Amino acid sequence: MVNETQHTCSASSSSRSDGGSSSGSESSKDNSRCSTPVLDADRHERLRDKMRRRQDAGDKWFSLEFFPPRTANAAVNLISRFDRMGAGGPLFIDVTWHPAGDPGSDKETSSMIIANTAVNYCGLETILHMTCCNQTKDDITGHLQKAKRLGLKNIMALRGDPAGEEWQEEVDGFNYAVDLVKHIRNEFDDYFDICVAGYPKGHPEAESYEADLRHLKEKVFAGADFIITQLFFRPETFLKFMKDCQAIGITCPIIPGIFPIQGYHSLRQLVKLSKLEVPQEIKDVIEPIKDNDAAIRNYGVELAVSMCRELLDSGMVHGLHFYTLNREVATTEVLKRLGIWKEDPRRPLPWAVSAHPKRRVEDVRPIFWASRPKSYIYRTQEWDDFPNGRWGNSSSPAFGELKDYYLFYLKSKSPREELLKMWGEELTCEESVFEVFTCYITGEPNRNGYKVTCMPWNDDPLATETNLLKDQLEKVNRRGILTINSQPNINGKPSTDPIVGWGPSGGYVFQKAYLEFFTSSEIVTALLKVLKKYELRVNYHIVNVKGQNITNAPDLQPNAVTWGIFPGREIIQPTVVDPVSFLSWKDEAFALWIEQWAKLYEEESPSRMIIQYIHDNYYLVNLVDNDFPLENCLWQVVEDTFELLN
Amino acid sequence: MVNETQHTCSASSSSRSDGGSSSGSESSKDNSRCSTPVLDADRHERLRDKMRRRQDAGDKWFSLEFFPPRTANAAVNLISRFDRMGAGGPLFIDVTWHPAGDPGSDKETSSMIIANTAVNYCGLETILHMTCCNQTKDDITGHLQKAKRLGLKNIMALRGDPAGEEWQEEVDGFNYAVDLVKHIRNEFDDYFDICVAGYPKGHPEAESYEADLRHLKEKVFAGADFIITQLFFRPETFLKFMKDCQAIGITCPIIPGIFPIQGYHSLRQLVKLSKLEVPQEIKDVIEPIKDNDAAIRNYGVELAVSMCRELLDSGMVHGLHFYTLNREVATTEVLKRLGIWKEDPRRPLPWAVSAHPKRRVEDVRPIFWASRPKSYIYRTQEWDDFPNGRWGNSSSPAFGELKDYYLFYLKSKSPREELLKMWGEELTCEESVFEVFTCYITGEPNRNGYKVTCMPWNDDPLATETNLLKDQLEKVNRRGILTINSQPNINGKPSTDPIVGWGPSGGYVFQKAYLEFFTSSEIVTALLKVLKKYELRVNYHIVNVKGQNITNAPDLQPNAVTWGIFPGREIIQPTVVDPVSFLSWKDEAFALWIEQWAKLYEEESPSRMIIQYIHDNYYLVNLVDNDFPLENCLWQVVEDTFELLN
Repeated sequence: MVNETQHTCSASSSSRSDGGSSSGSESSKDNSRCSTPVLDADRHERLRDKMRRRQDAGDKWFSLEFFPPRTANAAVNLISRFDRMGAGGPLFIDVTWHPAGDPGSDKETSSMIIANTAVNYCGLETILHMTCCNQTKDDITGHLQKAKRLGLKNIMALRGDPAGEEWQEEVDGFNYAVDLVKHIRNEFDDYFDICVAGYPKGHPEAESYEADLRHLKEKVFAGADFIITQLFFRPETFLKFMKDCQAIGITCPIIPGIFPIQGYHSLRQLVKLSKLEVPQEIKDVIEPIKDNDAAIRNYGVELAVSMCRELLDSGMVHGLHFYTLNREVATTEVLKRLGIWKEDPRRPLPWAVSAHPKRRVEDVRPIFWASRPKSYIYRTQEWDDFPNGRWGNSSSPAFGELKDYYLFYLKSKSPREELLKMWGEELTCEESVFEVFTCYITGEPNRNGYKVTCMPWNDDPLATETNLLKDQLEKVNRRGILTINSQPNINGKPSTDPIVGWGPSGGYVFQKAYLEFFTSSEIVTALLKVLKKYELRVNYHIVNVKGQNITNAPDLQPNAVTWGIFPGREIIQPTVVDPVSFLSWKDEAFALWIEQWAKLYEEESPSRMIIQYIHDNYYLVNLVDNDFPLENCLWQVVEDTFELLN
Repeated sequence: MVNETQHTCSASSSSRSDGGSSSGSESSKDNSRCSTPVLDADRHERLRDKMRRRQDAGDKWFSLEFFPPRTANAAVNLISRFDRMGAGGPLFIDVTWHPAGDPGSDKETSSMIIANTAVNYCGLETILHMTCCNQTKDDITGHLQKAKRLGLKNIMALRGDPAGEEWQEEVDGFNYAVDLVKHIRNEFDDYFDICVAGYPKGHPEAESYEADLRHLKEKVFAGADFIITQLFFRPETFLKFMKDCQAIGITCPIIPGIFPIQGYHSLRQLVKLSKLEVPQEIKDVIEPIKDNDAAIRNYGVELAVSMCRELLDSGMVHGLHFYTLNREVATTEVLKRLGIWKEDPRRPLPWAVSAHPKRRVEDVRPIFWASRPKSYIYRTQEWDDFPNGRWGNSSSPAFGELKDYYLFYLKSKSPREELLKMWGEELTCEESVFEVFTCYITGEPNRNGYKVTCMPWNDDPLATETNLLKDQLEKVNRRGILTINSQPNINGKPSTDPIVGWGPSGGYVFQKAYLEFFTSSEIVTALLKVLKKYELRVNYHIVNVKGQNITNAPDLQPNAVTWGIFPGREIIQPTVVDPVSFLSWKDEAFALWIEQWAKLYEEESPSRMIIQYIHDNYYLVNLVDNDFPLENCLWQVVEDTFELLN
């Protein structure tokens, strides 16, 4: 609502079209029955119910507003910001709508696609803004249908800026936000949660503060579920507004919009757009330090914290909405100081869930994509049903192709030059590849003094859980067992365990030890001999890029490797080693050698040929130790293999 | 094949109708996909494949033949014989067909219903005999359709006895067993496994031994899967027959029919019916001891064991088929001495599985019916789908009514007089009921010196597993916590554990402690107060006969209380405490007070009024301790309750 290209108004008007048609063109009630144990109520509730539940529980919450980026690179950065700021536990985020920027398109920078990414790939409850003025009903309905198809469930209904100074109301057109609210309710029944904007000082174009309040009431009575306000500078502004709303019968939640001042320039621009007056006491502080960004930000944080405290202490405010301006530091600082930034180490499931409604029963995934959840979501986006309870016998639909490794939400956060520094400007032999893997595991700098903080298969530093295996992993990577995924065995730790815990408290989590790596055919030959000794204990799948496949899995059945037992629930087994999807993962895992690594180098260069050689000749191996209560035998298996080789 | 009313022949004939129609009237391939972890290959394989697999594994097996009983009481006895003899691990049992006894009817003594009971309620692979002569195609097809509907998968195709001496072949009718084989294949494609009879000495009505062999070959080539032979007295008779069969190209399994001589009378009758000659050396032994049943039986066992040994040692015989004459002792003795009676303490699942094909994916049941699996199968027989992997959220279809408590396969094995001795000729107060429960738990005789070996809710003595809880159970039953179901907590015992183990070896089984009991409203009031302290740990459901229901189960979700982790498989959770089906079980559990106990007494008698009072006023309670790795807290809950009462 406060970014550079768009702001909202609900200017007064006496004649409004009623929206007309009585029943929606699209039946939108979601009746799909949930038969999964409800691990995480958040996955199943609509936003307005979550809000109500948090309020009833006396739980304070926050939400974050972002605008769509201008470039694809900025989009990649914004998405990793979603992931980082999502970790603090916002109730939702919202993405503004840029009528001038083709906001409903499939461009990676469009409002629609950014919101889609937030929901599906970052698992965030998301509100998509939408403006209606100067648009046809068909346009709007098209946008809403697309939003629904993408799994978006919440719309912020806005008027938007009329084009040109001489704007005239259109008969039967969308003249005000209330028209959009009515249209959504007419066409989509109760499918969407609808948010509308409130103006604590009255909309600048409104006849009067009171008239503006009446318009707000109209929007609510037309079907809006809650209100987010324009920013304001003094807490009493909001508290008075809220009382005034209640006085005229507005009972839905009203969420104050908080704008932490982050710089002189952005404040000035904002003031211009929102036609708000900056109070003198703020100007007095800012003017003298206008060239000192850090000082202004500190002041802005201070000011926001004190205003938020006052709002929360009033007892009338349960949630705070932050205009982030797509920046992280100030908002995070405010939230942390307020104590409502809550990095909950507990996860509903061991992997990052998607917030698409059709995935809300999903509770089983193959372990292979553990470090590439966005790729997994992408490759399964066309599925109609998601595994729930059991993975089942190879009965899952096919995985989508993943040809575009530069798909923006899978793109590496590091540019080519940085990757070259980490993975080697020049590779001389297979051992130099072993070194890269080893440095990634140990966290030690490589021979050129650079830390290896990501790998083609892992865009993030080592998981805390993997750290438990660090010493062993280091040893085997040095010798050419190039690990890309692993987990220790766990025999019943509390579900609240900060490292391996997941799911509701009071439960117990379990794991079978898992190890996945690339290695040479020479090592595989020895490994297979060793595995004979472990036939009943260790399940293995060994495959090369051509699809040669060696396994001892019975009947291509999946093997559950992570499960949890919770009070009063059925058993959850969120990760399996599935022999069938391993072959789809294999294609992706091998392709990453080429797409992410080999292609950093010139064609025909020795470095590129080394990676190509590994791609063509190595095997991808996974091992499961079924005897989870005993000490993990997989290290012994590897040890025995090296011994046999010597 | 050798019982008193029916024997089989495949008399020679030169002209045979070919069966005609090319494609079956009923599509019978069973394509239902199995997505359950295959815990027990036996549940999923057809009989001919099991036979082949056992043979390939060098595994010797046996099968048992029974004839339908004449009376309902005899049927009850036969069914418990099925359960007992089933424990020895027969590959299959077969039930003979009595054309004179309305064999395809719904009578509890009909061949069809006995076979149905064996498959569905005893979980035994079963072959139903069927004879065809003097029957119309429609009759036969009707029988076969009914058999298929009931879940029968194997037919022994026989001619049967022509009615009257002057039997004439019917054109296009069923004149020989081969006609029936062709008919089954024409009408039901490959749905049924078909067995036919072989005559080691040639059929008595056959032109010659060679002609009879040719007829046997015709039956096999018409689609029979294997052969069971008529009885014989010397091993060399069978071995020659087998070689002769192979010589003319019969390659399917041929299973020798073994008849352990059990008495003078039965042997004479058999010889008369089968037109076989008893060898002189046998007559010489038997005639002098013909009035000494025990001596004859010992001799019969001796003879059978030595013959079976010779057959097995020949290397040509992999399975032995026993003509039991519906008796247990001799056959069991022979099998035990041969070492092929294998009481495998390991169970595929913790409950008795049904062999109906539509139930083969079933792997979750509510714990309530643990002691009444036949009732559970009966009440769910109309379901089209069975829970697999997850029980799910109250999504199961309704349970069938169980009005007929005297349903023959649920009937108590003990007559009324015996029940009165166990449960009290005269009850004087509620405490006399407590005593009955206590005596059942302890195994001690009651005040009149009778042991209580069954209860209305448990027709068998205490399970070995329950014995683990005996001392605690005794204590609480004495004080009016009348337990009807319980299990200890188990934190990862090997799946081969003789008491609590189940499933394939190499796995680990787990349980949450469970306790289910009737108790007075006074105790329930105190219990509820105590349970507040255990709110997060113990889930409870408390209900009375009127359906007043008190629970702390979240969202009516099921609670998995038994689960197993196996190598290379998904997790199995075969029993749950399901809040919804508990209400169906409640009706049954309360009704058993009246139907099985109160009705033993005169109306208006004090004894009956005491039971009626309990039925009307007590509550049925179940408790689950979710903290399975800790010491079971349910005894402490009960202890605290009694303390609060004092």
